[in-house]
Amino acid sequence: MNKANLFTPLPDAFDGEVFETLLRRSDMRVERIVSHGQSSPDGFWYEQSEGEWVLVLAGEAELGFENGSAVRLGAGDYIELPPGCKHRVNWTCPDAPTIWLAVFYLP
Amino acid sequence: MNKANLFTPLPDAFDGEVFETLLRRSDMRVERIVSHGQSSPDGFWYEQSEGEWVLVLAGEAELGFENGSAVRLGAGDYIELPPGCKHRVNWTCPDAPTIWLAVFYLP
Repeated sequence: MNKANLFTPLPDAFDGEVFETLLRRSDMRVERIVSHGQSSPDGFWYEQSEGEWVLVLAGEAELGFENGSAVRLGAGDYIELPPGCKHRVNWTCPDAPTIWLAVFYLP
Repeated sequence: MNKANLFTPLPDAFDGEVFETLLRRSDMRVERIVSHGQSSPDGFWYEQSEGEWVLVLAGEAELGFENGSAVRLGAGDYIELPPGCKHRVNWTCPDAPTIWLAVFYLP
């Protein structure tokens, strides 16, 4: 059995977020996302047919929602984004990588 | 949207491993497992019909496999255990909690 590590090696995400699929099955997948100061473009919303369970493991981020609310996520914080839940990344920490672990699943 | 934290509060697992389901769908689930020095009983093997993708976020552990091999897992290490893969927990760190994040999925 082969192991790998979520933190090492870590891609440089300064010039753009880096998405990597760690596990993929027909009805779910696990992704690592590394951000470094990025946020969603003005007016952009993620609106996914899949559900997403997302955990921040390092760094810090803020998600925004259509009703104007926002949730700040630090290390260890996780949140469930139901299918169709419009959301955006308002902010990620500019000083260090933010490492996300996202589990996507069919509704 | 409500967030929660994987590290806080952390249950005391000194007297036994603590399993908590963080997300459950019909064909997958996400679990937090906290160990504190436990290992599988002699001769015991996990043999699951589900696949398991498991990540160690704190502490340290060793998994053992039927062919006699073993894999040591520290913070950030993850491994995929295919459905039916016989495995056991040989050891977890006795000095601090070991926090696992496990994603189980149907084959």
